[in-house]
Amino acid sequence: MAGRFDWSDGFIAVDWGTTNRRAWAVAANGETRELLDDGLGVLKVEPGGFPSEIAALRQQHGDRPILLAGMIGSNRGWIEAAYVPAPATLDGIVDAMRWPEDGVCIVPGVSYRYGRDADVMRGEEVQIFGGLAAGLQPDGLLCHPGTHAKWVRLQGRAIGPFRTVMTGELFSTLSRHGILMDRLQGKVVPNDNFRAGAEHGLGCDDLTAELFSIRARYLLNVGACDDASYASGLLIGADVRIGLAFGGEGPVALVGRPDLTALYAEALSLAGREARQIDGERAFLLGARAIAERLT
Amino acid sequence: MAGRFDWSDGFIAVDWGTTNRRAWAVAANGETRELLDDGLGVLKVEPGGFPSEIAALRQQHGDRPILLAGMIGSNRGWIEAAYVPAPATLDGIVDAMRWPEDGVCIVPGVSYRYGRDADVMRGEEVQIFGGLAAGLQPDGLLCHPGTHAKWVRLQGRAIGPFRTVMTGELFSTLSRHGILMDRLQGKVVPNDNFRAGAEHGLGCDDLTAELFSIRARYLLNVGACDDASYASGLLIGADVRIGLAFGGEGPVALVGRPDLTALYAEALSLAGREARQIDGERAFLLGARAIAERLT
Repeated sequence: MAGRFDWSDGFIAVDWGTTNRRAWAVAANGETRELLDDGLGVLKVEPGGFPSEIAALRQQHGDRPILLAGMIGSNRGWIEAAYVPAPATLDGIVDAMRWPEDGVCIVPGVSYRYGRDADVMRGEEVQIFGGLAAGLQPDGLLCHPGTHAKWVRLQGRAIGPFRTVMTGELFSTLSRHGILMDRLQGKVVPNDNFRAGAEHGLGCDDLTAELFSIRARYLLNVGACDDASYASGLLIGADVRIGLAFGGEGPVALVGRPDLTALYAEALSLAGREARQIDGERAFLLGARAIAERLT
Repeated sequence: MAGRFDWSDGFIAVDWGTTNRRAWAVAANGETRELLDDGLGVLKVEPGGFPSEIAALRQQHGDRPILLAGMIGSNRGWIEAAYVPAPATLDGIVDAMRWPEDGVCIVPGVSYRYGRDADVMRGEEVQIFGGLAAGLQPDGLLCHPGTHAKWVRLQGRAIGPFRTVMTGELFSTLSRHGILMDRLQGKVVPNDNFRAGAEHGLGCDDLTAELFSIRARYLLNVGACDDASYASGLLIGADVRIGLAFGGEGPVALVGRPDLTALYAEALSLAGREARQIDGERAFLLGARAIAERLT
């Protein structure tokens, strides 16, 4: 698989999502440098257009091996890299990678089946192994907040059972459509309103009713409120309630965008749980390096 | 208030919502006839344009008194008819009506305050009093399904405490935006998939996670499923769980669109509760007549 490329000389790591693409150069000594952050998501690449995008990357940034992760490996991407069933180890992930070209690998996602139910992740797995490389407990509970938040029980450095909560998508959708739209335009911050929402979400299972209350309180002028932060707290509180019920003990690892991990840390604190925050970008690059080390 | 109009000679009843308008003629003997069902919601009427719309109605359908209900009485409508606090009796509603012109009344909505929380309805109150006129128990639990489903505890023929659940809006939004959109295009019917979703929604408080499972099961091809009916069942099951926790005993009155009341009746049956369904159009006209009787 290594072909003419030597991964230990450094490589390019790309987080290639549905609507965005980010790329970094990872040097032989581990130093990283961001190369691009653009809107060329996989849906914007013409059918058959990936080889020329890879050639362009190499022309601009050097003739190096390239690691691709994210939706690039989905059925809407370049070549489908089938989900690895949980529990998924880093070695299992590396074994299941696809190699569409010499020196180009695509990281697969992870699936989890339990009874008649199922879950999937694609893209978060690199960050999770990066978090483990950064020293996370090999059997702890991990949360990756985002459009589709993932709660993962780690099992001996493997991705064990996990559950996805649609928190980010719901907040984003409610702030762009429907009756709450006008009330959710502010910036979300972990203030008293966020904490009040999170307390409610942690304690009550009436999310779809409490969301409407935001509108009713506004119409009746009951207490001034930063409704964007309250609604975010409500959704994240419910998310944390679902995640904690999912199992695991000790501090919760939060891997992702720092503004999001800060909000989840606040909600976890209200639930009496400690959190350790790891920047998702750093985790992605550590995970990419951990994969590359297995390719040399 | 009666002016030159005699309500006992018959009147026009209009359910004037944000995006739609429906009107009926109600004859002196109680017979009703639909006059129109069009897209002239209150947001489509130019500022100051309501008097000429009323004149047009009278020119086309006879010089009769007109009862207006729904968002026409909101701050985005013609003249705001302030919410009547619950418990709200029919007499209290009639007393609080606004009369923008001789022979034209606007029905107010109802508000409910409890501690630091609040709820509102506008439009459903006419159907609720119509349901009572149709013989509903004066102290029972009532549900009006829709974009914003209302659960109402009736108290001696008054609208008592109530709670709104955003079930219809969430289903509609998820079927038009986001990752579940493709899976929610089918027609919702109370089939086995609907019942499986409702059972889950009645029993579990993980709605925002279970919604994502719909996507994961599809990607992993775990069991063929009518996902639109499953998702609707899930949301309605959670809705019924919230509504039943809200209080009340005996059969639940379901007042609204027959296709929706049928789905809620199915979910209630899974929860071991009987339901009595009343067509919302019939209830609206009965409620309008009950108001008109108080104006003669």
